[in-house]
Amino acid sequence: MRISELSERSDVPVATVKYYLREQLLHPGAAVTARMADYDETHLERLRLLRVLREVGQVPISRLRAVVEAVESRATAHEVLGEAADALAPTPPPPGPGHDEAREHAERLVAAAGWDVRSTSPDMADLTGVMETYLDLTGTQLPEQVARPYVEAADRLARWEIDNLDAEHGGQALLRQMVLGQVLLGRLLMVLRRLAEESYSNRRFGAVPAD
Amino acid sequence: MRISELSERSDVPVATVKYYLREQLLHPGAAVTARMADYDETHLERLRLLRVLREVGQVPISRLRAVVEAVESRATAHEVLGEAADALAPTPPPPGPGHDEAREHAERLVAAAGWDVRSTSPDMADLTGVMETYLDLTGTQLPEQVARPYVEAADRLARWEIDNLDAEHGGQALLRQMVLGQVLLGRLLMVLRRLAEESYSNRRFGAVPAD
Repeated sequence: MRISELSERSDVPVATVKYYLREQLLHPGAAVTARMADYDETHLERLRLLRVLREVGQVPISRLRAVVEAVESRATAHEVLGEAADALAPTPPPPGPGHDEAREHAERLVAAAGWDVRSTSPDMADLTGVMETYLDLTGTQLPEQVARPYVEAADRLARWEIDNLDAEHGGQALLRQMVLGQVLLGRLLMVLRRLAEESYSNRRFGAVPAD
Repeated sequence: MRISELSERSDVPVATVKYYLREQLLHPGAAVTARMADYDETHLERLRLLRVLREVGQVPISRLRAVVEAVESRATAHEVLGEAADALAPTPPPPGPGHDEAREHAERLVAAAGWDVRSTSPDMADLTGVMETYLDLTGTQLPEQVARPYVEAADRLARWEIDNLDAEHGGQALLRQMVLGQVLLGRLLMVLRRLAEESYSNRRFGAVPAD
């Protein structure tokens, strides 16, 4: 297909498609003439995946490159997933006065969960930020019994996700699974939690039935 | 305390504090002179809560007003939580060709979970968007066995959260619990899931131990 059809079917503007081609986030099409190329379903899928990373995962363009490079290199599934996790981690807040204590607390929580993670992971900085904010708002460290249900849910979901990953096919097949699992199912979890909160709140506090 | 100390302790710029006062997102201080007011711990806490809503919850200023108005009115806990949920829901994507089918699918999923939610909830639109994106990327509807672990985790966490809510004290105490529960523990869940994914990915695919 031509670039115009590719743009229409992926819902990505032609200018953005050209930008992705220049930046090598999208692989080149087959040359038809010096100024025209032919694109196929792999281009269409790549554009859809990049769109979900951008729009749902809120991954900045600069981090898209790291994800795509990991996917296209001969990196292991673990390395690709790590790049993706780093790209998806939000920017942690600047360290405040409670930072060192919060960081220690974050490390104890991860150790108690039995998780092996890089100490340099941006998610460790993000978890530290969550701990600091909790302390700031309540005057106490996040209690173990409050954290426990979240640790258990995260552990159960992550184990299920990684168990179900098909790492036989690298490259774009791995990218697709990563986008589905880490980005789209993450969004699914958050929206389902808000919906369930509304329902339980309705049952406990609602004066009238919903609707 | 004076506005300068309030700004410093809350880590919110003086200009933003003044904006919140003008917009009535922050209640006025006690007048000391015609041009000077005295602020207390309730002001400090309100600023910290607004900051977490803005920075962690990414709630736009225009939605902060709806949350604060619900908190300050004589609304029930259910109404306050509903306003907060609506403010926290991300903007759903524009409907695509698969919208109607996805919406039906979203409604079936929520009904199967046994949840009572308003059909007008922005989260229903967001769930529909997730369903559409899944269909777009995979060519199939989100299978029930993929959705199930997320529904179960959301149900368990939301039930626990609402059960543990202290609705005796309305107003700012309710706002604090809402910010902690819906915003900060939501962020906690997402970061723990990414950390657990890294750990299980490391165990399954990692060539070398982390670090």
